[in-house]
Amino acid sequence: MEGEPTRVMMGVNESTIKGYPHASISSRGAFEWTLQKIVRSNTSGFKLLFLHVQVPDEDGFDDMDSIYASPDDFKSLKQKDKARGIHLLECFVNRCHEIGVQCEAWIKKGDPKEVICHEVKRVRPDLLVVGSRGLGPFQRVFVGTVSEFCVKHAECPVITIKRPADEAPQDPVDD
Amino acid sequence: MEGEPTRVMMGVNESTIKGYPHASISSRGAFEWTLQKIVRSNTSGFKLLFLHVQVPDEDGFDDMDSIYASPDDFKSLKQKDKARGIHLLECFVNRCHEIGVQCEAWIKKGDPKEVICHEVKRVRPDLLVVGSRGLGPFQRVFVGTVSEFCVKHAECPVITIKRPADEAPQDPVDD
Repeated sequence: MEGEPTRVMMGVNESTIKGYPHASISSRGAFEWTLQKIVRSNTSGFKLLFLHVQVPDEDGFDDMDSIYASPDDFKSLKQKDKARGIHLLECFVNRCHEIGVQCEAWIKKGDPKEVICHEVKRVRPDLLVVGSRGLGPFQRVFVGTVSEFCVKHAECPVITIKRPADEAPQDPVDD
Repeated sequence: MEGEPTRVMMGVNESTIKGYPHASISSRGAFEWTLQKIVRSNTSGFKLLFLHVQVPDEDGFDDMDSIYASPDDFKSLKQKDKARGIHLLECFVNRCHEIGVQCEAWIKKGDPKEVICHEVKRVRPDLLVVGSRGLGPFQRVFVGTVSEFCVKHAECPVITIKRPADEAPQDPVDD
């Protein structure tokens, strides 16, 4: 009766809050919203595709206090990055496994908005869900928004899930 | 287990194609997409809320050949408008009834983008689905797009369903 499950791609990222090694508030919000409002009890009707795009660390804020003495120090840095990305995806995959929703997860490197749209083209999901910090126009100028770009350019329907105002951290640019 | 159904509001409008007294191509596309990809077999998990916004007929293209000889001619015109709106909603409500999805439908007058966002505020759906002709930037300047406005201003998550290219009528501004 049901045919192929509806394939929902989700762009997920890490929290930018220091010392908080988890998914961002907006990623978790978008994921929970999708489960509650779209998947509901129909766990076999959907397949979730988690894409985490790692931004090449140009500013290196996290590494302010590190000392690089040998090429190996950079290698271990890259491994740490990768481990963090895998940990992030593991949380989402575990949750899907618990509730019995099929899923896939993978990591890409690059500019999140470009990579997400490129992966939509390649993977052809039925729907793309992206979380958004819900920033005002003034804040958006400085941080850019992945969600706005995807709504315009992704070649599939897109839902943007805004972060609830009461979950915004002290600095709303954080997530 | 399931709690309240997910309330999906859909903005629907009539076709602009002359002599085609039905829902627009993009409204039907958005509706069918929602049934196939979101509702699926979980018919009790969703409630569809159909809003049809009638634009006060300022240019009166349809009435080019009419002759207005008395106030009653205008009254019957308004009744005709209303009858068309009701017919439009009837198609969607009938379809929902057939497949066992709860629904509600209503008509408002005004500027579609403003009225849809206002009704989202009042009705508080979980999700708004709007069809879009998928016009290019040049065409958009002249016809405006309801979907872009709703994505920016509606106070709930919004999905825009673009009309498939192979269903576009001869004049892509038609729908």
